[in-house]
Amino acid sequence: MSEEQRSQAFLQMLERLHERHLVGVEGVKEVWLVRHADAYSGIATIGEGLVDPPLSPVGRRQADRLAERMKPIAVDAVWSSDLRRAVQTAELVAAPHRLPVRTDSRLREVRTHWDEGRHAPLNEPGEYPFPESEQEVMGRVEAAVRDILGELPPGGRAVVVSHNAAIGILVSGVLGLGWGQLPILPLYTSITVLAAKDDRMVVRSLADATHLLEPGLGGR
Amino acid sequence: MSEEQRSQAFLQMLERLHERHLVGVEGVKEVWLVRHADAYSGIATIGEGLVDPPLSPVGRRQADRLAERMKPIAVDAVWSSDLRRAVQTAELVAAPHRLPVRTDSRLREVRTHWDEGRHAPLNEPGEYPFPESEQEVMGRVEAAVRDILGELPPGGRAVVVSHNAAIGILVSGVLGLGWGQLPILPLYTSITVLAAKDDRMVVRSLADATHLLEPGLGGR
Repeated sequence: MSEEQRSQAFLQMLERLHERHLVGVEGVKEVWLVRHADAYSGIATIGEGLVDPPLSPVGRRQADRLAERMKPIAVDAVWSSDLRRAVQTAELVAAPHRLPVRTDSRLREVRTHWDEGRHAPLNEPGEYPFPESEQEVMGRVEAAVRDILGELPPGGRAVVVSHNAAIGILVSGVLGLGWGQLPILPLYTSITVLAAKDDRMVVRSLADATHLLEPGLGGR
Repeated sequence: MSEEQRSQAFLQMLERLHERHLVGVEGVKEVWLVRHADAYSGIATIGEGLVDPPLSPVGRRQADRLAERMKPIAVDAVWSSDLRRAVQTAELVAAPHRLPVRTDSRLREVRTHWDEGRHAPLNEPGEYPFPESEQEVMGRVEAAVRDILGELPPGGRAVVVSHNAAIGILVSGVLGLGWGQLPILPLYTSITVLAAKDDRMVVRSLADATHLLEPGLGGR
């Protein structure tokens, strides 16, 4: 094989690698999964039913930073779970784009013992701690995201505000990993990018929150 | 348990979760692992020995965008592998911070069949395709990163420019995953954040390249 042929083979290999990961592929759609902003700092009570606090003051500042970051980005739709911390985060992101926030309860956080009025200590790493099963969560969140992708134009982008464990389970599922195999805590307002075309979906990036580096915003 | 006690228990659970992931912990250091910018678009030949092309024109534009993004971020040190595509990327990031680029060959890309003058087709997903073993790569890259962390002041941050598979193996190792279990291709100039304190290291985020959304920069 001549040096020129070898170089051509190298570049073809690289092109196939990119295609496998939907890089540079025409018409790829993106879902930017965003974790809601902080809703717990300084809170007096989590209430009795479903845990559904509004954003805290620090959470509003985090969401402002996220909105600032997303202002120049082309966005076709903004979706959110119907929980207040997610909707309020989504509203701040959507406003500069003059887009409505559309809610879907399938994007809610995993149902926890706390939501059911009980107490639950922090789980051991790797131990699944929720009354709602991983399969149920994956089923509903993935279905919601596939519906959102289905409505997007080719090359379109949706922002989808959801929750820590719901995002973790979806991303792990897309990667083929089970609970506890991806020990990353997505920070408040962090951005996780999924890229999709037809039935294929890849994880482009995970949990970036580099817009929160100002002191007091929880980005460290 | 009263409602107030239950709320306190919830907040304590959350605090322990954050502590587990080194969020909001005093003195945490960060390593921002950056994949070098593009060096292959429009290339005529990969040469005969070690694959070591300089940045392509599109790669320079990618690295400019990365440098722009990193300009307002506090950085204490900039490290790079000694391969040209990494050093040139690091130089553009380091310049506004008036920092030197320090090189460490342990941060190099995995040694491939191409580096050894051979031809290698794209591997099947999950199949380990390199003559240098995963253990060797993990050993040298992790040692380099631990040395870089050791030199940083408490709360310090280093930028470390390395390569696709080298970053993938390090991050997988930190997460406890083996080759093929983390099918994410970090885009050129993408940022992966590791947080560390004492001997603990966590992956904060993975492969964000949202600074590359302008058309023609390869961010889609």
